[in-house]
Amino acid sequence: MHIAVTGAAGFLGQRLIRRLLEREQLRGQPISRLTLLDQVQVEVADSEGVEVVSLAVDITAPRAFDELLDERPDVIYHLAAVVSSAAEDDLDLGLAVNLDATRALLEGCRQRDLSATRLVMASSVAAYGGELPDTLDDMTALHPQNSYGAQKAVSELLINDYSRRGLIDGLVLRLPTIAVRPGRPNAAASSFVSSIMREPLNGEEAVCPVPTDLELFVMSPDKVVKALVHGAEIDGETIGPFRAFMLPGITVSVGQMIETLGEVAGPQAIEWIRHEPDSKIQSIVGSWPTRFHTQRADVLGFERDRDFRDILQAFQEERH
Amino acid sequence: MHIAVTGAAGFLGQRLIRRLLEREQLRGQPISRLTLLDQVQVEVADSEGVEVVSLAVDITAPRAFDELLDERPDVIYHLAAVVSSAAEDDLDLGLAVNLDATRALLEGCRQRDLSATRLVMASSVAAYGGELPDTLDDMTALHPQNSYGAQKAVSELLINDYSRRGLIDGLVLRLPTIAVRPGRPNAAASSFVSSIMREPLNGEEAVCPVPTDLELFVMSPDKVVKALVHGAEIDGETIGPFRAFMLPGITVSVGQMIETLGEVAGPQAIEWIRHEPDSKIQSIVGSWPTRFHTQRADVLGFERDRDFRDILQAFQEERH
Repeated sequence: MHIAVTGAAGFLGQRLIRRLLEREQLRGQPISRLTLLDQVQVEVADSEGVEVVSLAVDITAPRAFDELLDERPDVIYHLAAVVSSAAEDDLDLGLAVNLDATRALLEGCRQRDLSATRLVMASSVAAYGGELPDTLDDMTALHPQNSYGAQKAVSELLINDYSRRGLIDGLVLRLPTIAVRPGRPNAAASSFVSSIMREPLNGEEAVCPVPTDLELFVMSPDKVVKALVHGAEIDGETIGPFRAFMLPGITVSVGQMIETLGEVAGPQAIEWIRHEPDSKIQSIVGSWPTRFHTQRADVLGFERDRDFRDILQAFQEERH
Repeated sequence: MHIAVTGAAGFLGQRLIRRLLEREQLRGQPISRLTLLDQVQVEVADSEGVEVVSLAVDITAPRAFDELLDERPDVIYHLAAVVSSAAEDDLDLGLAVNLDATRALLEGCRQRDLSATRLVMASSVAAYGGELPDTLDDMTALHPQNSYGAQKAVSELLINDYSRRGLIDGLVLRLPTIAVRPGRPNAAASSFVSSIMREPLNGEEAVCPVPTDLELFVMSPDKVVKALVHGAEIDGETIGPFRAFMLPGITVSVGQMIETLGEVAGPQAIEWIRHEPDSKIQSIVGSWPTRFHTQRADVLGFERDRDFRDILQAFQEERH
């Protein structure tokens, strides 16, 4: 079992790699090789028994995926992306990474007859937008109101069509907002969601750029990584006529998150949060829907978190 | 008022050009120039007072739109496309024409700051597919089950995002199956829809490749051309948060069409129809939905045909 991961240096990539190495197998087969792609060389500790090949590649360059695909991976996790704020700031960069690189990956698979290779791409709740119903479902149209979401929606359509044509065995998981992320803030418009929990727990100031009644649709890093693993293991035939759907998050308001922070870490933790409205972030994140019937994902066995308290406690335990 | 038309040699292009020259104005401004693009030079009769420039261009070539866009058209009708069966047979050609050329057109507009230029693209009912509700509406997801539909859906997302960013003033009209078309059969999977009416009226044999209980969502050439004109005239602000929607067709079964043919042209006309099932055409056309609430189009003032008898009679009158 040869698994490739693009965006391997990222938060999700790192966490997925760790999980795969712990599991030692995928689809019932021992993992023999991991090929890790990112702009920088990715180092992996404790990979006994698994050949790890790290490639530093600019995925917007011509033939960027050649070395990876020539080794005919069985599963490709395509996690590399320019996130929401960055894609909004730089249309060309977003198109190059979020659209053209996905297409190059698909074409590379097609040219090598990798029709049985499972390609799992991460998409996003940001692909939804516009005038939405109160509760969305698997048949709700994607009317993205940000370039990141538009580019992800385009990639979904291409992956679906290449899969339908039998050129690849693709699957796209639309991720809820991931919370709570460790590390530092990034260029995602949703970066604050983790910041306003993580920084106070570290005794640091955090900025909340949105009103506290703003709702979010969130999923813990643990459940997201579980979903990525599961996404490689479910059978293509059972997925249905469209290879992209929303993962089961939970709905929580920023106010509820802050309240839970107070309960879990004491009221003084809340004092670290400074409220500074940012209309740009508010307009991006505010356009993302927060209530879903995730029927497709539920039927296929993807798991949701129990509540936000669970998520925050798991994050705290991990820190110690 | 300078209007450009891609796919100008095609059936819709020709008909639209005729209508524009008859109207002499668009958006309340006299039409001063028409730029016509197609693979071949397009000739136009009776264009008094209007400068007509015909360009023979391969729109998949680099800088294909330069000459057109340098003249800063006020309205661009982007009708050039590789139709459904052809796009299914040749993925690369479909991607080049239906996706890359649309993107090149958008980029060309962006580079020239044509932010006020209204770009009207024709999309299709073929963009829908998969497990659909009985009646679709403006919020039904696009899960295309054919490459033509996928490529059109991708172009819709790009046009929407470029419009949202203020780089262009775009609008995409999803066309029902157009019936009855004059002329000869083409590579569209839906070509038979017109054939089984047109050929019998001409005393020629036609092949019906689908069961008679198959339903279609159809619109007359006249109403489609009216919609294209209207699509250039409606205000961008009123369109709403997504620049693509379905036009109001009418639902009719192949059996009802044949029955109407018998009523309008006499029972002997029906004898010309030979029933030869074609599973490929059946699977493409059978995946297209046939019942819609076209609320967005209705609110914006787009018109539907009264019934299929009206459509067939209008076609017959035009022949004489």
